[in-house]
Amino acid sequence: MERTLTSEARDRIGQTILLKGWIHRIRELGAVNFLILRDRKGIIQCVCDKKKIDLRGLGHESVIELEGEVKADERAFGGVEVVVSKINVLVAVTETPPIEVNQKLEVSKLGLETILNYRPISLRHLDIRDIFRVQAEFIWAFREYLRSQGFTEIKSSKIVGGATEGGANVFEIKYFGGKAYLAQSPQFYKQIMVGSGFERVFEVGFVYRAEPHATPRHLNEYISLDYEMGFIRDEQDVIDMEIECVKHMFNHVEATCPDVLEKYGVKVPKFDTIPRIKLKEAFRILIDEFGYKQEDIHDLDPESERLLCQHFEKTHGAPLVYVSHYPIEKRPMYTMPDFDDPGTTRSFDLLYNGLEITTGSQRIHEYGMLVENMRKFGLNPDDFTDYLMTFRYGIPPHGGLAIGAERITARLLELPNIREASLFPRDLNRTTP
Amino acid sequence: MERTLTSEARDRIGQTILLKGWIHRIRELGAVNFLILRDRKGIIQCVCDKKKIDLRGLGHESVIELEGEVKADERAFGGVEVVVSKINVLVAVTETPPIEVNQKLEVSKLGLETILNYRPISLRHLDIRDIFRVQAEFIWAFREYLRSQGFTEIKSSKIVGGATEGGANVFEIKYFGGKAYLAQSPQFYKQIMVGSGFERVFEVGFVYRAEPHATPRHLNEYISLDYEMGFIRDEQDVIDMEIECVKHMFNHVEATCPDVLEKYGVKVPKFDTIPRIKLKEAFRILIDEFGYKQEDIHDLDPESERLLCQHFEKTHGAPLVYVSHYPIEKRPMYTMPDFDDPGTTRSFDLLYNGLEITTGSQRIHEYGMLVENMRKFGLNPDDFTDYLMTFRYGIPPHGGLAIGAERITARLLELPNIREASLFPRDLNRTTP
Repeated sequence: MERTLTSEARDRIGQTILLKGWIHRIRELGAVNFLILRDRKGIIQCVCDKKKIDLRGLGHESVIELEGEVKADERAFGGVEVVVSKINVLVAVTETPPIEVNQKLEVSKLGLETILNYRPISLRHLDIRDIFRVQAEFIWAFREYLRSQGFTEIKSSKIVGGATEGGANVFEIKYFGGKAYLAQSPQFYKQIMVGSGFERVFEVGFVYRAEPHATPRHLNEYISLDYEMGFIRDEQDVIDMEIECVKHMFNHVEATCPDVLEKYGVKVPKFDTIPRIKLKEAFRILIDEFGYKQEDIHDLDPESERLLCQHFEKTHGAPLVYVSHYPIEKRPMYTMPDFDDPGTTRSFDLLYNGLEITTGSQRIHEYGMLVENMRKFGLNPDDFTDYLMTFRYGIPPHGGLAIGAERITARLLELPNIREASLFPRDLNRTTP
Repeated sequence: MERTLTSEARDRIGQTILLKGWIHRIRELGAVNFLILRDRKGIIQCVCDKKKIDLRGLGHESVIELEGEVKADERAFGGVEVVVSKINVLVAVTETPPIEVNQKLEVSKLGLETILNYRPISLRHLDIRDIFRVQAEFIWAFREYLRSQGFTEIKSSKIVGGATEGGANVFEIKYFGGKAYLAQSPQFYKQIMVGSGFERVFEVGFVYRAEPHATPRHLNEYISLDYEMGFIRDEQDVIDMEIECVKHMFNHVEATCPDVLEKYGVKVPKFDTIPRIKLKEAFRILIDEFGYKQEDIHDLDPESERLLCQHFEKTHGAPLVYVSHYPIEKRPMYTMPDFDDPGTTRSFDLLYNGLEITTGSQRIHEYGMLVENMRKFGLNPDDFTDYLMTFRYGIPPHGGLAIGAERITARLLELPNIREASLFPRDLNRTTP
């Protein structure tokens, strides 16, 4: 008999089906056992007559196959239950799992560290599994949209001979007696690929930041959704592309994971466009609307990002806003200055539900300007020969950005800590499991 | 005016269009200059009346925009040319590029090392660019097929606390004063994810092998197309899935990159199924058909892999064959033994055009058997606590495999060296560009 998934049972009322999965829970009730079976699609209630089906010795999480007849039953979740006629044990589990995955999930009570220490088990909890269903759909939709816009997917090396962007926070690798580093971002490679004639490229890959501080917003290894595009007018073209891209991502998650959104009590944001303000206007809003003092504001801290999203949710209906034109010294050396607004750059962040989920900009495409900027930033152009090759031999005006996959997932589902949106997070103290 | 891509010009005959791209070549002919423009879709011939359009000072690879009228011209490639009325220089290049990207590509003449040293420029060669178009389509199709079969995409950490599979060939990372390693494969994570209830997962990501030998078949960092699936009968279910998956991948590349296949003079293999033989049968074929001597054969070397593919191309019409049942000592400790064929395992390789492009197997799913096998392989089960957690609390019979993305690309296009199919390859001596 071919296997039926739990989600398909409701279409098989009256038929005998074969189910496979884990014993999520067993509950005794008089002459019957209610066995809740869990598979990759969800859970289903199965009824076992104690006289016919012996469940003794089978603990929670045992792996089984069972056959039974599907009956409509409004009291059961999903409106059906299966009356079991036969059971086949694939793996009998007798020990009690370190985390009870069939209970209501209370992250704060269990403790996030415990959840992460027992990741192989905690992922069995349906609420935790659902986080990564959403993340997979976000990633798929990101690629799908960009492909539709003529972008090519690339995979650039994560082992680099030098610190990619001149920063200090890189992990060092022992490389055959020499040294190399884990890439902080695919930035240089994306630009090289634009210059090499691909024009429009995207990459979904890990990036590495050896930042020794632990916050609920940072990971030392995270999934970066990167794109870079040539022949732009300015950074606004990069933003235009992203607005349609994230719209597609949100709509795709809404279409593929409606159950998760309902369970988490959240909705995807709905918008035609996303408002765009300069950093100085963001400061102005914080002063005028939230009583900040001019002299105290130098940058956007987490609290001010939260307030700005709140503000734009009220005025524009969605907790999203682009903040652009950060000062030159706050952005990497390859960022295009805005000559119409001296001291600022054609850079931007996208804030969503109180968190920066994207950083991007127009980049410098002129060889001379880039070399000069490297020097201004205290970098030696000779250390960037390979990168500069692209600029020496012609790259069009271009720009790009990166979306943090864990961040957009965490903000949609309102997870307080970014680690909850990373399958196997890495931080200051954690390299396992 | 909206931009037209070179590939779209043939649909605009008689219209004035705006093109953007790089100057691929300029050829003087009397009163006119023929300017070949290259963009992300290809090249197009543009005619510039010397009296009206001044190209002086514009070297190859300069980035320009131009306007002109599209005319049918059978002598031009693509059957059209553009009579230029206006040109706008975005970036003027005056130096001669270190690699001439508008000449016939002769890898052996230029030297692969030179091509790789100048990767940002050599990628501009259309023949080289095309390799990565094919690779991107292979990867897309891999994901597309597996999603259609209920697989979920995962991203597992590449920073691991211990050597993933007990092997020695790992790169060491300095991790905040401690040590970590680059993952040799997502093997343990894939299995954990199957056990955690996802049942079917795939991952496209880099894997790292610190093997200090340089061959035309190995990279120290490569793209692994991994999947793992639960509730299998045995390794044959994993193979069944792959046959349909690679069929989809080949068909997708044929549909999206027909021009590349034509240019490279290759065809995707066509097959209903792929023959499956045991290793001992492979030895038998080598002896019977190719004069190998029984006492000389202990393993499949590159030459015998080539002969086997040749053999099956002749007998079955496609240069593909599964070889299964490798001896226990040749496979990792998590490989399921075949108790019906003592000493062998439920493991397999897929050979394609003379190269192993896939390695896979059914895995051990019973906790006790796995612990015992670790000990037999000289490993300490205490070093694998996180991994073993999955088996302690119930994982179904499962198996999986990994396809090397660079390998399948290189074998389709008949590239002699695997480095040609890696955007920014890493080897013993190379961590740049």
